[in-house]
Amino acid sequence: MKIAVLGTGSVGQFIASKLVKLGHDVMMGSRTENNPKAQAWLSTQGANASIGNFNNAASYAEVFFLCVKGEHTITALQTVDPVNLTGKVLIDVTNPIAPGSTEIFHLLPELTNQNSLSEELQKNFKDLKVVKSLNTVWGGLMAYPGQLNNGDHSVFMSSNWDDAKVIVNNLLIQFGWREENIIDLGDITTVRGTESYIHLWVKMRR
Amino acid sequence: MKIAVLGTGSVGQFIASKLVKLGHDVMMGSRTENNPKAQAWLSTQGANASIGNFNNAASYAEVFFLCVKGEHTITALQTVDPVNLTGKVLIDVTNPIAPGSTEIFHLLPELTNQNSLSEELQKNFKDLKVVKSLNTVWGGLMAYPGQLNNGDHSVFMSSNWDDAKVIVNNLLIQFGWREENIIDLGDITTVRGTESYIHLWVKMRR
Repeated sequence: MKIAVLGTGSVGQFIASKLVKLGHDVMMGSRTENNPKAQAWLSTQGANASIGNFNNAASYAEVFFLCVKGEHTITALQTVDPVNLTGKVLIDVTNPIAPGSTEIFHLLPELTNQNSLSEELQKNFKDLKVVKSLNTVWGGLMAYPGQLNNGDHSVFMSSNWDDAKVIVNNLLIQFGWREENIIDLGDITTVRGTESYIHLWVKMRR
Repeated sequence: MKIAVLGTGSVGQFIASKLVKLGHDVMMGSRTENNPKAQAWLSTQGANASIGNFNNAASYAEVFFLCVKGEHTITALQTVDPVNLTGKVLIDVTNPIAPGSTEIFHLLPELTNQNSLSEELQKNFKDLKVVKSLNTVWGGLMAYPGQLNNGDHSVFMSSNWDDAKVIVNNLLIQFGWREENIIDLGDITTVRGTESYIHLWVKMRR
């Protein structure tokens, strides 16, 4: 399957590399066409990997992972021609962490409690099939769930689009998640739960 | 040990009844001295149970559980003579659920993300040793953890007071929580994690 990964940070690299390994055709997208981190990543991959800007990547793929920082999600997608978003499946793995909040971090207030980042994405890009998943674990575990408890732990999924959930479910299983551990929480408003959860799991990681 | 339970709802009743069963001397406190729910509870208990208003209960006990609705926590404690709070251990099991929010509920915005209910309690009652715990499960499971997964699941604890944590840890073990599953998250700011978590766990209960 042609899959794009928007974002060149560690989360994007874990996911893109895993997808290549699984045999998918993968384009890593970034704001600029010749992003050094994307080029470095490309040099370690085989012939089914490529790079481009966000619009190239969205145009290339049927399904794409959104792996940019939370505060950049909407502006990243605004650089894409809307025609390249229509009907596409977006797997949003981000969290709305407020920029600059580190030690005792917090989330962007306008995207918490009575709203969430994914809801805001779905409102802004109505023809995009937004599915939230994987945002409750760190990047390495997203792509390699077997690293923890022999792979026996939960991952969540939220979306208004049932057909998109089927696609994401299949990709999660390819990543190594066990079908019985993939918890469909319901529609996109349930993302409030998995995004807020970061307040708890970052404290457990210390 | 003399223990008070402030609140007469289902959470308060589960905890108070369990404490009586464990052999503690228990006073159930409510806003008024002759609360009908407290009287009904008392009629099912033995000689080591009693009832009173919040101030009676706080005066009676060294340790007390706060089991009123989130929005009433501060006003409940304001009815207590400060001398009856000084040096006492308060086990706060509440969540700051906004009044009237039901189907898609939310938390009181001023007590989330960069603040929490327990932090606000600690700020308002500086001589009280606030420990947050048990707020990540429903009342029946607080008092009877063995009902789920043979008792093998986690409970959290947050406080600025190490001596109070020792007392709470012992009570949790008496309730049936396993020592290895009691996770000390750190100081009172870590309550942001366990209070926000309600957005996720209520969705999993459906």
